[in-house]
Amino acid sequence: MEKHSLGARTLLFPTPVLLVGTYDRQGKPNLMNAAWGGICNSQPPCMCVSLRKATYSHGAISERQAFTVGIPSESLIKQADYVGITSGRNVDKFAETGLTPVKSDLVDAPYAAEIPFILECRLIQTHEIGSHTQFIGEIVDVKADPAVLDDDGLPDILKIKPLLFDTAHRGYYGVGPFQGQAFSVGKG
Amino acid sequence: MEKHSLGARTLLFPTPVLLVGTYDRQGKPNLMNAAWGGICNSQPPCMCVSLRKATYSHGAISERQAFTVGIPSESLIKQADYVGITSGRNVDKFAETGLTPVKSDLVDAPYAAEIPFILECRLIQTHEIGSHTQFIGEIVDVKADPAVLDDDGLPDILKIKPLLFDTAHRGYYGVGPFQGQAFSVGKG
Repeated sequence: MEKHSLGARTLLFPTPVLLVGTYDRQGKPNLMNAAWGGICNSQPPCMCVSLRKATYSHGAISERQAFTVGIPSESLIKQADYVGITSGRNVDKFAETGLTPVKSDLVDAPYAAEIPFILECRLIQTHEIGSHTQFIGEIVDVKADPAVLDDDGLPDILKIKPLLFDTAHRGYYGVGPFQGQAFSVGKG
Repeated sequence: MEKHSLGARTLLFPTPVLLVGTYDRQGKPNLMNAAWGGICNSQPPCMCVSLRKATYSHGAISERQAFTVGIPSESLIKQADYVGITSGRNVDKFAETGLTPVKSDLVDAPYAAEIPFILECRLIQTHEIGSHTQFIGEIVDVKADPAVLDDDGLPDILKIKPLLFDTAHRGYYGVGPFQGQAFSVGKG
């Protein structure tokens, strides 16, 4: 059957739930929720995150040249959503959510101790695309709770229990069952 | 407990499985599998995809200034993986997988008829980051199979059944259960 045309829209499945950590000019830690981002380079490892210029985090990243990206577990869904519907301009989101700010030892940005998986990023490129500015950060370290690591020392996606954002109906989803091994299931 | 440092690595959860469709100089349609990409702008709607310069698709996007992004269903896992472990330089991936190339009516790029959800993108920016080139495409249309749409005309993530790529153990996963409504569950 013919495909339906839905028009020019920001629909994609899945998008991640990224909690972006920054310090403002006064050193107040802040978190925001972004779905427009992901890995964008292998060597050096880099992450991109797109933010509207009006966001408080936009100014903070430009000022401090750094940010963190945290991947919240399903159990942090309320906090993750809260930091996406409030602004650090008006609210101390760490205080309001009860999350504990920790200063990165490598970049000038904080993360929340309760988030199990963290990327620490140093800003290396900034691109104006349109409504959003895309910040490209070099990932200088990855930090994870021991509880989400497997015996091989690598993170286990089923232990992190990351959230997915559904761009069509604005729902959060969990990760489903294993489907197959990449670079393998397509052989032969 | 203290977080463990895992070093500077491209680990993120989840990343998407994006099937990038292009024409080469001779007009041969090609597909590749990319996990480094996502939505990067709202107005105009834009998608970014990062590819190594050595890939056949890299040259094709530069030449044609266009690409499509398809979101394969779980049932297309073998085809999705196959197009990620072979090169269009040596293989006709559409012929090998049995997928049917369809020329986009809006951009100079093809997509596979069997993929239920497609973004058609016109190249608007190109960024050299390091190992990878990041292509930014304006989404000029979204096309979806009627079977993956809800009564409201929007795609249903549970009908698309997109794959997720696990960057740590290179597995493909499905979408799990609904966890909550965004811009809502964090209120109060």
